[in-house]
Amino acid sequence: MKKLDHVGIAVKSLKDAIPVFEAIMNTKVYKEEDVVEQQVKTVFLQAGESKVELLAALSDESAIAKFLNKRGEGVHHLAFEVDDIFEEIKRLQALGYELINPEPRKGADDKWIAFLHPKNTNGVLIEICQEIR
Amino acid sequence: MKKLDHVGIAVKSLKDAIPVFEAIMNTKVYKEEDVVEQQVKTVFLQAGESKVELLAALSDESAIAKFLNKRGEGVHHLAFEVDDIFEEIKRLQALGYELINPEPRKGADDKWIAFLHPKNTNGVLIEICQEIR
Repeated sequence: MKKLDHVGIAVKSLKDAIPVFEAIMNTKVYKEEDVVEQQVKTVFLQAGESKVELLAALSDESAIAKFLNKRGEGVHHLAFEVDDIFEEIKRLQALGYELINPEPRKGADDKWIAFLHPKNTNGVLIEICQEIR
Repeated sequence: MKKLDHVGIAVKSLKDAIPVFEAIMNTKVYKEEDVVEQQVKTVFLQAGESKVELLAALSDESAIAKFLNKRGEGVHHLAFEVDDIFEEIKRLQALGYELINPEPRKGADDKWIAFLHPKNTNGVLIEICQEIR
């Protein structure tokens, strides 16, 4: 594992949340990206070598909409960057961890991403990611 | 703001949670520390320049015990490192943000820490911290 790549935070309204995180982190959003397949709108703020990703739902079908309905706003996932996501998935499966999507899919920020099943990860949704090279 | 210093995760049992995070992050806990004043036991795992801090309650009086009773296991707070926590508190107060503890207190990992009141931070408990020099 190379680093904590980002922390994903589910918010109801980017318009409301962006000024809050810009103020607290004392930095500006540097990127906006829609992940239409996941029905999610994302924005990123830099925090050293890590990022905060604010996530809002583009529709009620989005996993973020379901999360917000169930849990309210807050941290949605932690993402760890790895060198080789395919090797990392094999390593984790060999240790008995289940992946929600064992085939990496394309996420925001030019990354291959895969999520660990949260049933065994102490209430934390964990993503592993790798830059698409 | 210098970086995302750490992500604090509340867990019921460090004995159960440590092997999970060691396996997923593919690294070992490098430090354990009790913060008796807060009735919290902490362990740290490195993730690039950031850390994951697992937090367990030392007693029912601990804020972590209360969090676990109310919300269950999961991400408890995000901590951003700043150069000068006293200046940063003034900056945030001037922007209208309320601090839970406007006077920094000593936290784990040789840090001055202060928590923002979570009422205005989109469901995320945010700590600012500075190394004690």
